[in-house]
Amino acid sequence: MLNTVISIVGLGYVGLPLAIAFSSKYQVIGIDTNINRINDLNQNLDKTGEISTLNIKKSKKNILFTSSYLNIKKSNIIIVTLPTPIFINKKPNLNIIKNACKIIGKNIKKKDTIIFESTVYPGATRDVFVPILEKYSKFKLNIDFFCGYSPERINPGDKIHTIDKISKVVSGSNLQSLNLISRIYSKIINAKIHKAPSIEIAEAAKVIENCQRDINVGFMNELSIIFDKLNLNTNEIIKAASTKWNFLNFKPGLVGGHCIGIDPYYLTYIAKKAGYSPEIILSGRKVNDNMGYEIIKRILKILNKNKKYIKNSKVLLMGFSFKENCNDTRNTKVFDMYKNLKSKSAKVDIYDPLIDSISVNRNYDINLTKKPKYNYYDVIIIAVSHNIFLKCGLKKIKKYGKSNALIFDVKNSFPNMGLFYL
Amino acid sequence: MLNTVISIVGLGYVGLPLAIAFSSKYQVIGIDTNINRINDLNQNLDKTGEISTLNIKKSKKNILFTSSYLNIKKSNIIIVTLPTPIFINKKPNLNIIKNACKIIGKNIKKKDTIIFESTVYPGATRDVFVPILEKYSKFKLNIDFFCGYSPERINPGDKIHTIDKISKVVSGSNLQSLNLISRIYSKIINAKIHKAPSIEIAEAAKVIENCQRDINVGFMNELSIIFDKLNLNTNEIIKAASTKWNFLNFKPGLVGGHCIGIDPYYLTYIAKKAGYSPEIILSGRKVNDNMGYEIIKRILKILNKNKKYIKNSKVLLMGFSFKENCNDTRNTKVFDMYKNLKSKSAKVDIYDPLIDSISVNRNYDINLTKKPKYNYYDVIIIAVSHNIFLKCGLKKIKKYGKSNALIFDVKNSFPNMGLFYL
Repeated sequence: MLNTVISIVGLGYVGLPLAIAFSSKYQVIGIDTNINRINDLNQNLDKTGEISTLNIKKSKKNILFTSSYLNIKKSNIIIVTLPTPIFINKKPNLNIIKNACKIIGKNIKKKDTIIFESTVYPGATRDVFVPILEKYSKFKLNIDFFCGYSPERINPGDKIHTIDKISKVVSGSNLQSLNLISRIYSKIINAKIHKAPSIEIAEAAKVIENCQRDINVGFMNELSIIFDKLNLNTNEIIKAASTKWNFLNFKPGLVGGHCIGIDPYYLTYIAKKAGYSPEIILSGRKVNDNMGYEIIKRILKILNKNKKYIKNSKVLLMGFSFKENCNDTRNTKVFDMYKNLKSKSAKVDIYDPLIDSISVNRNYDINLTKKPKYNYYDVIIIAVSHNIFLKCGLKKIKKYGKSNALIFDVKNSFPNMGLFYL
Repeated sequence: MLNTVISIVGLGYVGLPLAIAFSSKYQVIGIDTNINRINDLNQNLDKTGEISTLNIKKSKKNILFTSSYLNIKKSNIIIVTLPTPIFINKKPNLNIIKNACKIIGKNIKKKDTIIFESTVYPGATRDVFVPILEKYSKFKLNIDFFCGYSPERINPGDKIHTIDKISKVVSGSNLQSLNLISRIYSKIINAKIHKAPSIEIAEAAKVIENCQRDINVGFMNELSIIFDKLNLNTNEIIKAASTKWNFLNFKPGLVGGHCIGIDPYYLTYIAKKAGYSPEIILSGRKVNDNMGYEIIKRILKILNKNKKYIKNSKVLLMGFSFKENCNDTRNTKVFDMYKNLKSKSAKVDIYDPLIDSISVNRNYDINLTKKPKYNYYDVIIIAVSHNIFLKCGLKKIKKYGKSNALIFDVKNSFPNMGLFYL
């Protein structure tokens, strides 16, 4: 084999850590069409917060950050770590990767191997991506080039399960590529490399991981809906149930983001196409997708009981990212809460010091509050359990509210403080 | 307090182990209206297979086994471990406990404490059982007598998580009874005693444990339906996904028995009554309830592919209990498989050496096969993964079939043997 040079296409939450990891063993070309991202990385700055400036700087001698796909020509392994979102109708939107495949196809050489890490439905690599690669390269799979799928398992914000410690599933279009792909990843992963028997098995394994989590959180959300109606404290019930050795300690909450809230639609899409409409997976999605509205419904119920009304109330919504301690706002369910409050004529300020207000303004047409006013709000909703809010403490948060303000602690960030929570 | 004497009402899978455990510390009265059961126990025989003859014999000096409720008068603690099944319309059938409460009510004294261990919906103890106890005793709760709920967590057939090692949730009708109940159980339980803040919290905690398991197995069953349609091997997919640190390793399978397949209907009943129709829990039930038929559908598909037809085929169905290594046939889904095969004019023999053929005949109108014939069957279905089948080995099982027989291994009892499985 020639000197291995690896192109990583897409330098987001998944691609950048992977590029950094590979750069310790190989020459890496990091490609992202977002020129701002490339400029940042060239200045050792990772706005996703996953990689420190020091680590980028250290890795630089082996990585070229570029926005040009032409650099693929210099590599023999191309790893695609681009996002796979859904359309508004919840159907898989593979356009980003399909477009990338056209340009990759035009730039690959014979014997190159293309590996996909993005979450897809089983069959997408072979049925959707490979035909595009073949068309634009005029090559034939397993004769002129090879292909593989190795799902990313990055957990954004998790500093314990880092890429080198997470076991990795690999698959290939034939035995030769399977072994090559396995060998390459084994250089940077200290955990187990699991060779899946086919690309489709590896694709399916990834998508079910996120479905399982979605359903289990959905179940907790459903319980919290039921127990709210029965006037029982869900948290106490979960606490009691958790004393059983095999109880799974999930918590109710908002399921947003670009993985758990999205990936199940990939699996349900292909299942429906095969003639089966998933019962459990779709019901989990339905419950979870509705939780932003459900929470506001409960808040209004408690306001009413306290003879308070939402109309013209001043509301402080704390946290806007899709989960705690990260600055990713894609598919955040706090936006549903915001929309719902606005539709009821509340005056809503959103405060999230972790988030880049320019991108929120661009994507959501919302102006974040730089600093909440003191002694000002009727209602305070702690929607995301950022460490920065926990450190700030309840005492300080209370100061934002009027003396009779009601505080809702959606994620039970301050347990045993007598706040209303899920 | 007077000398504590404990009555255990209902000596099945739950009551007998509890009675045996308490007998090491207290005088125990074990009551069951099934006279055959009492006769067996008096001869040191436990047909459920939970307690050995030796252990019954050892405990006898502190236990009176009786079918008469009048003996309750001699005790001051009454623990109810009776079954809570469902009606054919899937609604909770509390009649067994309601009837017991009438007789218990007639026989209790002032200061007695009645504890329920059976799975119910939150509210059942206070809203259904207590009023009956009050009516028939003419006593008032928390003045004349006390009440509690402490859910059983017995795992039939599990010799590792035995009663003394499983942490126990307790609750009481007031603080005094909570403390008393906690104290009594702490004498026989070496694990944690968790004091729930209310009877309803303890009731809810129990029912959600089994719902969670039902949904997670249901999810695996749904995956197996989807992947069967996509011609992908579910087992390989689960194997790959299981290499992720937080993947929950459930398996597809038949969910029967008197707990997991029943308890969710208790929770959905009370949820609907409160105005919410559970999405996820009911979809899990729907998928699981249908799996017996789904498996036969898949078997027929494979038979057809092999140019074989079910009509007049000789089928050996191995295993009839609701789960492996136990002799409990309540709500077994193998019966659905049997019915389905019969409706297609197959000739079906059922073989389960663990099961009492008389009770199966009484409850299901089925005659079990004492010994399968050799070289006789067209189709063999290993439906339950009894250790006794594993020990017997595939070679011997194959001998029951004709030379061209197809063998289906529903639970993947013989992995990597090339048999068809879920």
